[in-house]
This record gives sequence, structure tokens and C-alpha cells, in this order.
Amino acid sequence: MTDQTPKTNVKARLPRGLADRGPAEIGAIHRMTSAIREVYELYGFEAVETPFIEYTEALGKFLPDLDRPNEGVFSFQDDDEQWLSLRYDLTAPLARFVAENYDKLPKPYRSYRSGFVFRNEKPGPGRFRQFMQFDADTVGSASVAADAEICMMAADTLEKVGIKRGDYVVKVNNRKVLDGVLEAAGLAGDERLGQRLIVLRAIDKLDRLGTDGVRHLLGSGRKDESGDFTKGADLSSAAIDRVLAFTGARGATNAATIVNLRDAIGGSERGAEGVAELAEIAALVEAGGYGDGRIVIDPAVVRGLEYYTGPVYEAELTFETKDEHGRAVRFGSVGGGGRYDGLVARFRGEPVPATGFSIGVSRLLAALTAINSPIAHGASARGPVVVLVLDRAEMARYQGFVAQLRAAGIRAELYLGSAGMNAQMKYADKRKSVCAVIQGSNERDKGEISIRDLVLGAELAASTKDRADYLELRARAQFAAPEADLVQAVQEVLGRHS
Amino acid sequence: MTDQTPKTNVKARLPRGLADRGPAEIGAIHRMTSAIREVYELYGFEAVETPFIEYTEALGKFLPDLDRPNEGVFSFQDDDEQWLSLRYDLTAPLARFVAENYDKLPKPYRSYRSGFVFRNEKPGPGRFRQFMQFDADTVGSASVAADAEICMMAADTLEKVGIKRGDYVVKVNNRKVLDGVLEAAGLAGDERLGQRLIVLRAIDKLDRLGTDGVRHLLGSGRKDESGDFTKGADLSSAAIDRVLAFTGARGATNAATIVNLRDAIGGSERGAEGVAELAEIAALVEAGGYGDGRIVIDPAVVRGLEYYTGPVYEAELTFETKDEHGRAVRFGSVGGGGRYDGLVARFRGEPVPATGFSIGVSRLLAALTAINSPIAHGASARGPVVVLVLDRAEMARYQGFVAQLRAAGIRAELYLGSAGMNAQMKYADKRKSVCAVIQGSNERDKGEISIRDLVLGAELAASTKDRADYLELRARAQFAAPEADLVQAVQEVLGRHS
Repeated sequence: MTDQTPKTNVKARLPRGLADRGPAEIGAIHRMTSAIREVYELYGFEAVETPFIEYTEALGKFLPDLDRPNEGVFSFQDDDEQWLSLRYDLTAPLARFVAENYDKLPKPYRSYRSGFVFRNEKPGPGRFRQFMQFDADTVGSASVAADAEICMMAADTLEKVGIKRGDYVVKVNNRKVLDGVLEAAGLAGDERLGQRLIVLRAIDKLDRLGTDGVRHLLGSGRKDESGDFTKGADLSSAAIDRVLAFTGARGATNAATIVNLRDAIGGSERGAEGVAELAEIAALVEAGGYGDGRIVIDPAVVRGLEYYTGPVYEAELTFETKDEHGRAVRFGSVGGGGRYDGLVARFRGEPVPATGFSIGVSRLLAALTAINSPIAHGASARGPVVVLVLDRAEMARYQGFVAQLRAAGIRAELYLGSAGMNAQMKYADKRKSVCAVIQGSNERDKGEISIRDLVLGAELAASTKDRADYLELRARAQFAAPEADLVQAVQEVLGRHS
Repeated sequence: MTDQTPKTNVKARLPRGLADRGPAEIGAIHRMTSAIREVYELYGFEAVETPFIEYTEALGKFLPDLDRPNEGVFSFQDDDEQWLSLRYDLTAPLARFVAENYDKLPKPYRSYRSGFVFRNEKPGPGRFRQFMQFDADTVGSASVAADAEICMMAADTLEKVGIKRGDYVVKVNNRKVLDGVLEAAGLAGDERLGQRLIVLRAIDKLDRLGTDGVRHLLGSGRKDESGDFTKGADLSSAAIDRVLAFTGARGATNAATIVNLRDAIGGSERGAEGVAELAEIAALVEAGGYGDGRIVIDPAVVRGLEYYTGPVYEAELTFETKDEHGRAVRFGSVGGGGRYDGLVARFRGEPVPATGFSIGVSRLLAALTAINSPIAHGASARGPVVVLVLDRAEMARYQGFVAQLRAAGIRAELYLGSAGMNAQMKYADKRKSVCAVIQGSNERDKGEISIRDLVLGAELAASTKDRADYLELRARAQFAAPEADLVQAVQEVLGRHS
């Protein structure tokens, strides 16, 4: 009855691909998501949140992983035998939410949400099975003005969190144009859907593999450095040339790019529709003042997800960073999205146009850390004041000290361990405390407390006694004060280092 | 190729026991958790977060549901066949985190975290399968000063979020005292653990069932209104009397309660240890200034979880509210916790003392809503300014208007749907917009815009033309301005209603 400690020893370990987060990272994400939220609200987007668990069938299977159709998602059976899954993105649950609440919502419906999503994948460096996304979506607008707006909002968001103008670009393309190019290359029709998806994913790797690598993926296939072979799309070399002419069609200006694209689509009607939409987006972006290279039509952007039906966009950071081999590379994508007119329709059986953008929160935070953004680092974190416990019988008195400090709005802790004075001072250092409050029996008999300034104390320890101001410094680093002046004395020390 | 809408119709529905949350609730929770965080940081607690998924064996089975040992938790197998579970509270994952990072952490280690937890239970009214908790824990301190501190912090937190002093009480008890009482009643020993747990859960229902109901649960069992029978602890009537004398031992003051408890424990050593700890807590609470009825020793509080090993505490709101039958009842518990010295020890094989407190976020928010706290309601939410689209060919020009407004920090939207003028005005109403910006071809030819004040407009619609100021009101409710003065004109209208 007295010992309730279980006898078995369990190993304390995180499952693979999951991570704990400490106060610095939590603070940084809090500051970053607050800044993003501010921009989204300025654009009239309102918050909405869906639960982490949905019916598996409601989520559908839209992960870019053809080879493992049953993986990618954490699933489990409910007690009524229906399958549930953890959400793998924030788009599929939004589609369910909109479909379920369609009549109540204003239309068009602009909303945003952030939260964790889960992927049941092989984890790797920087690849986690739980990560945070921050999404914004406009549902119920077929107008490409909705896509253009989200691109502008993405640009504003990057600047708001501290990315300088010129250090980012929002690239826009249109799936309809790619469809037109593939049609012109002879890849139309439902029976060639699989082949088109392979083309899509090949183009999506342009950044990583370059034109030559993608040429192989469009053709017979590609063997990577490790010897693994990826099956190709088996296009004819004429078709490959056509696709690569398309992905390389970016001109010096959006207007020039649009002229190039008109060539690339041959006579395809769907392609022409896509090019017209891009021209309209370019005009809106220009009118909004974002045509200065911040938002750029770039045919090399296709996005890996199957469900996009029109404009797609990607927010890229253009400054350099090091890759895992120490080579200088552009930082790259921190978010992207596009138009997915079919997702809500899955539930409603009538077309519901929608477009949305998703920020990879960890990825963007990594970028802000790389450029030393104040959002990533925050104020240098001073710890709480520590009240030492030299005489355990006087616990209630020490407790009164911390209560006084907290009542004055000063972050303060009572030392709650069982160690002696030296260990308590080390604890205060570990907590990054600015000062410690000390009262032994000597001080108590005199009705005094002693304040130790830990910042000056560290300076003192590093200086020499030859310094002219050594004694003065020492006197300031630890001094006595009447117990009644506790708050005032602590405030004085905090004021020295604020 | 053109139609990517899947042909199957999936029903849009949330799984049972899960909920979506809109902007009002999200805003309220944001304000509430910010306030809680502020208090916790003042006490020197630092943020830490663990993932949603843990190894099932790491979480252990500590849910108060003896009858269904394999239920209560959402679990699934990883691809290496190990079992994973969604966390069911924030305490078990913290124990894993502390055990895994023991050497790096300051000791004692004060931390807080909030987040969703999951219960695979039968949902019911107000009972969800995903809900939010906000926890604070001190690990590595065996001193009951740590428990006392958390009780004081709980009191400060309730006041910070808007609960008035006198409308809440933090009740404290000690499991060691209960152990002592049960020992004195002849229920010591490992082989009577199951029986002791039934006693624990019976006492935990005192609030709901009253003394008579609990008396049955301590004896042969109890049949509830629906006829369901719950097995009892089978105590002798002398033992039942002893237990109920203990739960009813609260006196007029903490000091009086402690005297009563000394009687209740008979000669039990463990019981005496528990009473001494309660006396120490009472002294610390008094020294902190919380002995004015805010923190009260109450033997009727035991908490339903098996893993508590010492002090347990419960934060209760004492004002009245209506229960599901419309009867006036005290609002009741919004959080609780206690000392769980065995949880970290499960991993480390050495005792690691710990104590913690958990707030039920929805429950506390319901309380704040009941008392009309500003945290629950926020500022009356005005929507964004809506720029109407009367001439689709001029989209870029309208887009320029919203860009100007947003650049001036004004929340603004372009109407992105395809409906006509009337529907657009209805949309602006639904969005709770203060004003709409209108430019048809007439206004455009004159280089003007028209501003409609929707708040005055609503007043105007409700008033009669006989009013002396009708014409003036009408002129103010919609007026023209030069296009160049857009921002200024909108700001004027916003200023009228801020």
C-alpha cells in the first residue's frame, strides 16, 4: 500500500519521426503564427478548426505516393467498425467541413487554420510524422481573382514574418496549361491518367534533379546515386521536348512568359483557357502592385498533388543556405497550393470551386532562423528570480517572498529541491535567473534579505581584483536590503539588465 | 482529362464525439490560454510540448475505467509492429519526456503545456473524444511546497481569466490520509488494491450521488435510475462509517479539519504522514495569503485517477448554473491534479517525485461563458470592409482598391463570387461588414467611389421618413467620394462605429 511505483521498467523513448519541442521553439512558432494570422485576418479570412480524426473515406487518398496506396495515413477502426484516420493535411478536412456546413457559410467562404497533420511515412532528416501546417482557403469562388489574392497574401505574409522583398518569389502556374501541353503531346484521356501523374511528379522534381534528371523520368526512367531505379512516363522524345519546352517557358516578364505558353499548348482549348487565366492573374497582381517580381508566372511549378485543377502556386525563398552536403543552395519552397475544384464536390455532387495555400510551419521557421529573424529568436530569455531555501523550517516565509514578487508582476520561483546552497545557485544559473534572493539565519535575525545579481556576479568572476572598480562591482553584485524592501531591491537589479 | 471530379459521393460528416470550432470559440480559447500562460510564466513554469502519438506502453493504462481495460485509448500498430496510441492526457507523455531528458533538465523542473487529448469512449452530451487540457507540473520536488504552489497558481489563474474571488475554491486532500483511513478499516495490502480503487471511485462520485449513493457503492453496490447496477466495494458497515467520517471531516477552518483528520486515521503511520503534509500545505497557503477560503483542505476530494500518491487538489467554481434538467447546481470542477511520484519512476526505476494540475479547457470556457467574462465573448466582431464587383471587366481596378485598404491596415475583402449587387450586399451583411465600397460605371466615369455605411443603413431601414434627420441620415449612410480618397472615406465610416 505504501509503494505505488510499478515494478516493470519501461523505456522512455519517442516513436520514430516524432519530436518534443522546448520553450524557444514554442515561442518562435507562437510569434510566427500570430504574424501570419494578422495578415490573414487583414485579408478577411476567418479562423476555423476541424478535429484531428476524420472518417478515412472523407479524407480520400490524395497523398503524392502512388506506390503505397494504403500507407501514408494513420488509420484505426472505430468500435462500430468504421475506419478513422488522423488527418494528413488541412485541405481534405476543410472540404468535409464546408460540404457539411455549406448552407450556413458565407459564400465565397474565406478561412484559415493551423495545426498538426500526420503522415505514416518513413521518417528521415527533417522529415517528421507529425508536423504543422498553416492553411488559408477560399471556397465558392471560381474567379482566378481568388487565386491571385492568395498569392498576394502569401507575399505579404512572408514580408510580415521578416523575409525581405527580393528574397522571395511566389511562382504561379496553371494545371490547365500543363493539361493542354500533354494533350498536344498525345496524352489526353482517362486511360492515360496514370502516365500524366508520373509526368506531374517528374516535373515537380525539376528543382532537385535538374532538366536532365527530369528528362529521364519523362522517358524510360532514372537510376539515382544509390542505384534505385524509378520508372519513367515513357513519353516519346518529341513529347518530352514539348513538356520541357513548357517547363522552360518562363520569360523575362510575365507578359513574355504568357506569349511563350501560347506556343507551348499547340491548339489545345483547355491549354488556352489556362493561359487566359494566367494572363488574368498577372493583370490582378500588377494592379495590386505585386508585379515587381514578387509574383511571377513560372511554368516549372506544377505541385505534386493530384487534386489541383487550375492555378497552382509556390512560395520560394531565393536566398542561399547550405544543403546537407554543405553546398550552397537556394532555400526553396516554404509553402504552396492551388485550385482544387473537385474536393468539395466529392461530398456534394455539384462543383464547388476552391483554392488554397499551405505554409510548412517548421520549414518557414527554419528559414527565419537562418536569416536571424527576431521572430525566430525572440528577446533574450531571462529566467525567473529564484528565492533560495537555506532553512527548510522557514519554507512559509520564503513562500511569502515569492508571493510578494509575483504579486508585483515579477516572474519568481521558490527553490523546491532538496540540495544545498551551491547547487541552488547552479540551479538559478541554469534557469538564467537575473538574481537570487537569499535569507539565512543571519539575515533573518537582522530583518534583512540578501540579493545576488547573477549577471554582475558572472562578470565579477571573470574580472580581476586589480580593476579599479572591483570593490564597487562586488558591492553591487551582492547586497543586503531590509526584508520589507524585497520587491524594490529585486526591481532595481532587474532594471540593471533589462 | 477536363473533369477531375470523382464520381462517387461521400457523405460529409464528422465522426461521433468530435467537433469543429468556429472563429468565436477559437478566439475565446486563444484569449483564455494566453491568460493562463501569463500566470504560469509568472510562476517560473516554462513551455514544453510532446507529440500526439506515443508508444502505447509508455502511456501506460491509467484511465479511470476498470471495466474496459483495453478501451479508452485510440491505438494502432506501427509498420514495425509496435503499438502506438494517441495520448489520453498530458501527464503520461510528460513523464516520458522527463525520463528521456532527465539529465538535461533543471531540477526541480516546472513546465506547462496545452493541447488536445483523445479518449476512445462513448461520446455523450458535453463529452468529446477530442478535448483540450492545459497542464502545469513540477517534477523533481518531493516537497509539498510544490503542491501548495500549484494550488496557489490555480487560484491566481481562475482570477486572471475572470472568476471572482469567492466564486471558486481550490480543495486539497491527501491520498496518504485516505490510505491511512483504509488501513485503519482493514483494507491494507496489495491483494486489496482493486477494492481500494472501487472505494476511491465511489468517493469521487460524492458530488454527484451524495452520501447515500456513495454509501451503497462502498457496500454491496448501487442501482441507478436507469436500473443499471454498479458493483460495490463490499466494505463492512463499520468500515463504511469510517470512510464517510473521513470524507465528511471538513471543519470550519483548515486547522479544524486537520484535527478531525487526525481522528479519522486511527493509528496509521501513513495516514499521519498525510495529515502532516496537509498541515504544511495549510501553513504555506496561509503564508502566501491564500488562507482566506480560497484554498481549503477538504477530505471529500480524492480524484478518480489511480496514480496519485500524495496531495490531490481540485479547482471548483461555487456559483450556480443549471444542470441538464434545468435545476440549479454549483458549476463544479474545472480542473484538478495531484502528486504522482510513481509515473516517472516507471521509466527510470528510481523514485522521481512529481505533482501537476490539469485544466479542462472547454469546461473552464463554459464557465466563463456562463458568467459573461470578456475572455469568452471578446470584442463585438465587426467584419471586413467589402469591395463590391459590379463590372467584372474591372476586377483589377477593384483589386487595387482592396490592396490600398489593406496597405492602410484596414481589414478588407474583394467580393469573389459571381452573384449580382443585391446578393453582394447580403454577403457584406453576413460578413458583419461596417461598410461596402461600390463603383459602377457611373461612378467610374466621374473618378468616384460610393461608400455604403451598413450600420447606418440598417438604422435607416428601421426608421421612417418622418424623422427630421432622415435625409441627413440617408446622406451619411451612402455617399460618394473621389477615388483617390478611398482610404480616408472608409476610415471615416469605420471611425463612426468603432
